Amino acid sequence: MRAVRLNEIGGPQNLHLEEAPLPQPGEGDALVRVRAAAFNRRDVFISQGLYPGIVLPKTLGSDGAGEIAALGPGASAATHLAVGDEVVIDPMLDWGRDPRVWDAKGSSILGMPRDGTFAQYVVVPAANVYAKPHGLTIHEAAAIPLAGLTAYRAIFTRGQLKPGETVLITGVGGGVQTFALSFAKRAGAHTIVTSGSDEKLAFAKSLGAYVTLNYKTMPDWHKAARAAGPIDLVIDSSGGETLAKAIDAVVPGGRIVVYGGTNGDATIKMFPLFWKHVTILGTSMGSPQDFAAMLALFDDGTLKPAIDRIYEMSDVVAAAEKMASSTQFGKIVLDIDD
Amino acid sequence: MRAVRLNEIGGPQNLHLEEAPLPQPGEGDALVRVRAAAFNRRDVFISQGLYPGIVLPKTLGSDGAGEIAALGPGASAATHLAVGDEVVIDPMLDWGRDPRVWDAKGSSILGMPRDGTFAQYVVVPAANVYAKPHGLTIHEAAAIPLAGLTAYRAIFTRGQLKPGETVLITGVGGGVQTFALSFAKRAGAHTIVTSGSDEKLAFAKSLGAYVTLNYKTMPDWHKAARAAGPIDLVIDSSGGETLAKAIDAVVPGGRIVVYGGTNGDATIKMFPLFWKHVTILGTSMGSPQDFAAMLALFDDGTLKPAIDRIYEMSDVVAAAEKMASSTQFGKIVLDIDD
Repeated sequence: MRAVRLNEIGGPQNLHLEEAPLPQPGEGDALVRVRAAAFNRRDVFISQGLYPGIVLPKTLGSDGAGEIAALGPGASAATHLAVGDEVVIDPMLDWGRDPRVWDAKGSSILGMPRDGTFAQYVVVPAANVYAKPHGLTIHEAAAIPLAGLTAYRAIFTRGQLKPGETVLITGVGGGVQTFALSFAKRAGAHTIVTSGSDEKLAFAKSLGAYVTLNYKTMPDWHKAARAAGPIDLVIDSSGGETLAKAIDAVVPGGRIVVYGGTNGDATIKMFPLFWKHVTILGTSMGSPQDFAAMLALFDDGTLKPAIDRIYEMSDVVAAAEKMASSTQFGKIVLDIDD
Repeated sequence: MRAVRLNEIGGPQNLHLEEAPLPQPGEGDALVRVRAAAFNRRDVFISQGLYPGIVLPKTLGSDGAGEIAALGPGASAATHLAVGDEVVIDPMLDWGRDPRVWDAKGSSILGMPRDGTFAQYVVVPAANVYAKPHGLTIHEAAAIPLAGLTAYRAIFTRGQLKPGETVLITGVGGGVQTFALSFAKRAGAHTIVTSGSDEKLAFAKSLGAYVTLNYKTMPDWHKAARAAGPIDLVIDSSGGETLAKAIDAVVPGGRIVVYGGTNGDATIKMFPLFWKHVTILGTSMGSPQDFAAMLALFDDGTLKPAIDRIYEMSDVVAAAEKMASSTQFGKIVLDIDD
């Protein structure tokens, strides 16, 4: 089969389309014929060596959709789906038994250390395959998993967003933040978004953002956001100064969900944190319950993932470099060869 | 009446016992004949000018217990208590309607800007007087309000402590942390405490702490705490480096409640925050519901506040200087003159 492999650390240009052995489903596994995959920042970080526990060579990719090609021994106890069914894969492997937090030692994410979805076939636990939502194409379905899961947990499970509340989404444009925007709007919330790009802000507006703020031309964006609020919830993956400003921006009793730290360490003042009864909630990925609930949002076909562009499998380096440039709005999808 | 007044910023030695006019209860108010009061760090901060919105001269004091001397017009609609009843005062004035967070604009704390409990009489809203728990002396009751309320909300309302969990209480010795230790133990939790003083650690041990760590002789106390854990909940009023270490110390899914920041700003790493799904919960004071639930813990008389020492009203400067020195274990109580 053809697979996109990383043989050596060195950045996106090291991703290489090559022949790889067809994997075999083990006990409880499903073999999925992948039709479409999608990029996450994680794939770029791994190619750059910026990820814990890298083992090479490896087929990357956390997001994928396709159809079940075979089921391993005992797999039918873990899924009601059958060979030929169109599926989307939950990339969170072995979350553990506690919906509140993953099993930090036993769990992993598809695509490292387990071979991922940038290949014609991938083996995953049968419990991780879900029926593709009817209203979505296979490419749309492939765009959802990791970012949709992370956004769902951030907005609902951790953030407890309620209809009528206002949510501030910092640095919109990436996969998770774009899903967060769509999910928040669907939940009946008002949305305020920031970006350093007017183009991304315009796109966010077209997705329903009601206030857009360019943090490059407006250093005091947090004050403008607070004035446009009241901001009940912030969804942030920046950390650093952004998190400090978010504490200033939220209402008393406000929540701030953090799922990344691209701006580095945050220096936060204690007084506004405790005086305003602010809650800061760390999150990463999501539980099986989160994944199922997230997929259900797409069931009626009215909600669609934002897709920046679909690349051919042979253009994987260009796709990865687009991801690395952070100029996309929405997901970068990879069409997998027939 | 005699009252301890602050006429000028300058530290504890500026507290002055003098004659002041007897206050009159207004609409909905109760006039309380104070029998005992207690210090909080807040009183010292105010005397040093380290508090927002100071208006002088003022009678300080948030904590007090005594008996109802008179009720203002309409006050009996707000309380079932009557003149002569022994009471303890909830120092949180006008919390607001939302139990999740105070009304940051409308609320205040007894003792600034409203005249406080370091006086023979104090006027408070009748809704803020509660029957003294039967098993406590009037001096014990006076030791409870602000610190007990803050600790209750930190441990239970915000921290959601459950039986069998382990809680780490940093910098034990002050009023809130000592109540937190007692409340956690009563709730069936294991307790780990830190202090820079072996004497305070020994005292904490006598109150039921099962692991004690001296952070002065053990800079990596957070690793020792983690090894002694698993730590489900941290109660901290230090901020700064302590908060950063607390994130390292807690289990995945752990909670950290912060109600102060004596160590200043905290520089925190994003990765452990989101990867471990940690929750940081700011808190300050507590709602009327918190106060009532906290008082109920003392009803059967088996739980007692830790009292460092009871000072005469004429020794108020010595009492305040003891508070400022941070060498106490438990509350510093002021006996109010007959």
